[in-house]
Amino acid sequence: MRFAFEVKESDLLGRVGSLRVGGRSVETPCLFPVIHPVVQTVPTSEIKRMGFEGVMTNSYIMYSRRREEAAKMGVHRLVDFDGMVMTDSGGYQVLEYGDLGIGVREVAEFQQRIGSDLAVTLDKPTGNSESRSYAEETVRESLKGALKTIRDFPDDPTVWVGPVQGGTFPDLLKRSATALVKAGFPFLALGSPTLVMESYRFADLAKMIVATRESIPYSVPLHLFGAGHPLTMPLAVALGCDTFDSASYILFARRGNYITERGVVSLRQMKVLTCNCPVCVGTSVEGLLGIQERQRATLLATHNLWALRREVEVCKEAIAEGRLWDLVQERATAHPRLFEALEVFTKEGRLLQEGTPAMKERGLFVRGGADLARPEVSIAKQRLARAIRKGSSEAVILTGPNPQSARAAGNSEGRQKDFFRMGPIYGPYPVELDFVYPFTQTVSSEGVSGVTLAEATKMLRKQGYARVRVEGAKRNTLRSKQRSKAVSPSPP
Amino acid sequence: MRFAFEVKESDLLGRVGSLRVGGRSVETPCLFPVIHPVVQTVPTSEIKRMGFEGVMTNSYIMYSRRREEAAKMGVHRLVDFDGMVMTDSGGYQVLEYGDLGIGVREVAEFQQRIGSDLAVTLDKPTGNSESRSYAEETVRESLKGALKTIRDFPDDPTVWVGPVQGGTFPDLLKRSATALVKAGFPFLALGSPTLVMESYRFADLAKMIVATRESIPYSVPLHLFGAGHPLTMPLAVALGCDTFDSASYILFARRGNYITERGVVSLRQMKVLTCNCPVCVGTSVEGLLGIQERQRATLLATHNLWALRREVEVCKEAIAEGRLWDLVQERATAHPRLFEALEVFTKEGRLLQEGTPAMKERGLFVRGGADLARPEVSIAKQRLARAIRKGSSEAVILTGPNPQSARAAGNSEGRQKDFFRMGPIYGPYPVELDFVYPFTQTVSSEGVSGVTLAEATKMLRKQGYARVRVEGAKRNTLRSKQRSKAVSPSPP
Repeated sequence: MRFAFEVKESDLLGRVGSLRVGGRSVETPCLFPVIHPVVQTVPTSEIKRMGFEGVMTNSYIMYSRRREEAAKMGVHRLVDFDGMVMTDSGGYQVLEYGDLGIGVREVAEFQQRIGSDLAVTLDKPTGNSESRSYAEETVRESLKGALKTIRDFPDDPTVWVGPVQGGTFPDLLKRSATALVKAGFPFLALGSPTLVMESYRFADLAKMIVATRESIPYSVPLHLFGAGHPLTMPLAVALGCDTFDSASYILFARRGNYITERGVVSLRQMKVLTCNCPVCVGTSVEGLLGIQERQRATLLATHNLWALRREVEVCKEAIAEGRLWDLVQERATAHPRLFEALEVFTKEGRLLQEGTPAMKERGLFVRGGADLARPEVSIAKQRLARAIRKGSSEAVILTGPNPQSARAAGNSEGRQKDFFRMGPIYGPYPVELDFVYPFTQTVSSEGVSGVTLAEATKMLRKQGYARVRVEGAKRNTLRSKQRSKAVSPSPP
Repeated sequence: MRFAFEVKESDLLGRVGSLRVGGRSVETPCLFPVIHPVVQTVPTSEIKRMGFEGVMTNSYIMYSRRREEAAKMGVHRLVDFDGMVMTDSGGYQVLEYGDLGIGVREVAEFQQRIGSDLAVTLDKPTGNSESRSYAEETVRESLKGALKTIRDFPDDPTVWVGPVQGGTFPDLLKRSATALVKAGFPFLALGSPTLVMESYRFADLAKMIVATRESIPYSVPLHLFGAGHPLTMPLAVALGCDTFDSASYILFARRGNYITERGVVSLRQMKVLTCNCPVCVGTSVEGLLGIQERQRATLLATHNLWALRREVEVCKEAIAEGRLWDLVQERATAHPRLFEALEVFTKEGRLLQEGTPAMKERGLFVRGGADLARPEVSIAKQRLARAIRKGSSEAVILTGPNPQSARAAGNSEGRQKDFFRMGPIYGPYPVELDFVYPFTQTVSSEGVSGVTLAEATKMLRKQGYARVRVEGAKRNTLRSKQRSKAVSPSPP
């Protein structure tokens, strides 16, 4: 098979995976830097050295400006990159500059001829349009091109990527994605989010991704077009985007903008470079401002790529460590518009459970109310509901600080009573779950409202216990951590 | 004067400053990596190349193990560092290993002899003690040593640093700090937070810093001992700590731990290195695990220093950009215990106003309720209260989208009415403030509860307007941004 996608680690809807096309493969999440077929700001050799395994280039521009050369050399030699090469169809350019006699067939033929590994079929981007009828038209047209391509061209050497259109209309996105999957596309690409992102409509972006991801099988990877804004990467990954492409590193650089994980800043507004990449370690803000504009743009673009690469690696590591939810929360704090997108995110608890492991090696963080929507918490509650099996008529809630002793108590008395402990946010759970994730591994902030002993007692009575007894300190809200008492001290 | 501290930029209680001792200076916030006088994991030449301008070393260990050599060579040549050298007194070691015949006088004499730039007088650390009487004793003893030193030894070549003790007892910290300032110490150092930090009691740490900072003049710089945990840096800087020292980069490295801005991770639990520093760019998790333990510790320690250096630079840049509040919020999201410390932070709004500029060049972010405690918001409200001067009996609230037209309206009608606009969180403000920071520069999340038109009307009536009229769209809550309407779309 020419195409394979294997999920190795997952958290929420984010996955670390291996995407293989023919003899080439990339590890996902993966960013494909956009390479201009003619003007090259950062050499591909440099991009390769930085560790990028794939690049994206534009087949339309190549067709219109280096057609013969590309056909003869192949796209890999032309852009001087022997990793994975994805080509965009040029739907946007056709729209912008007229069709110049190039249609679905020509685009497909050309992409195959130059040996693209992954090629998007010719589409009609919805763009930023808020007209439903226009959005419908783009979905129809894009789908027509996609179906024609996949019917007329075998997937060798090129694997076809299905373009999902529909703009910000969820039902159209769904229609588009469903039809592409049905037609046999092994890989989809969500179009047109660039303008949505440029206007910082991150909540809308999140809804677009959710609408698409919900409509396609978990095993189908999803590409997000033009998603080079550093702030959106963790959110997009967590909602199930596997690959990205972006020319943002160049575009920002040309305008003198510097990418950080906290957002994009104008170099002229900066005092210190907040990065340890090879570019930044060797220079300073003054150093960059003191050189020629063209040279500065190249250095800025290179830094920007390092910064984006780092963000991808941070996402990958967060998935592997099971801390993707936390990463999304941290990054979302960087901008109020991104903070709004969190609401979409927390509403999708059920969807996010799909890829979230039931067991993790790290503590589970609960900072505040929004974290109660974590899929790990929901999974734990479901597990808890199944775990409570009444073995007697008396329940004992143990509130002592040491789970070990509680367990001993549970074992020694031979099940004449059922022993429970209190989790700060789970309420009463059987002592048998004491060392089961995440009951004792949950670390919550003081501010998070816990289940009270009175509530816990009521819950157990509801489950049929005639008697509920509390053993140990009767604190009102129980917490798993011992806390300090000083700072507002009293004499010892 | 041998000592000078000049604040160049400030935000909250954080400052970018220049700290000068004799002919040497460092830019603050500044981290002094701890150099062991005998065993050197990362060469000082390397530390210098990384851009660190100062180091910290221990005069007690030097005294007990390299006394003659140090006296002859001087501390700068001994540790091979020509930047600023700060020496700790060894109070902790005296406590731990007995006094070995070394007292306040010997420690001071020795530090001066070896030519320390900054030297802490011999103190008795409170440590983690929760005994008030013991804490009182440590304050008394430390103060005695400090006063004796500053009386008996001129500040040349060495500038004395006054050790603030008192553990987590705010009144003792205050007593300690106040006495040191009164005695003429130009620079104080807050002791004993290491254990508090190691047990992740970040709220307590915040309270300790606040108690100290409140007791000393704004112009006196404050050092925080042993503060090498990456998570605490922005919080400590924002509460007014100017310099730090830490051996954490080595200690973590020896235990195989890797510093990130999201916390400290065991290398064995990692999949990918999430850093672009010179160490990480040249290797991988497998690469680091595959080498000898000693070599690995050196590489990890070097990476850890790069990571800490970056965090210091991020703080510096955040101060210069006026985004320190945002940075603290972002970083605090990384751990529930740190999230708790935010509460202390938001309570100190009045204190934080001291260093916060009234005008900033960037948008003001309001993500949620906690951000309403931002000093910028309070300053704006105070300014607003002064700005409202009733010029007529009729108030008009303009709700149109364009501030420009509102201004024109205000001017053209010759003040027969007073024109107001609605700020998303400020309520009605005079149109004259339209382009004044932060009234039109505030970017708030959808979720932040705004002032309603009804409330605004009531507020203006209270201020004596007989008539209050609304011109423009009567939306219930007004927002400064145009929002998208699609995603739950209706046909156009």
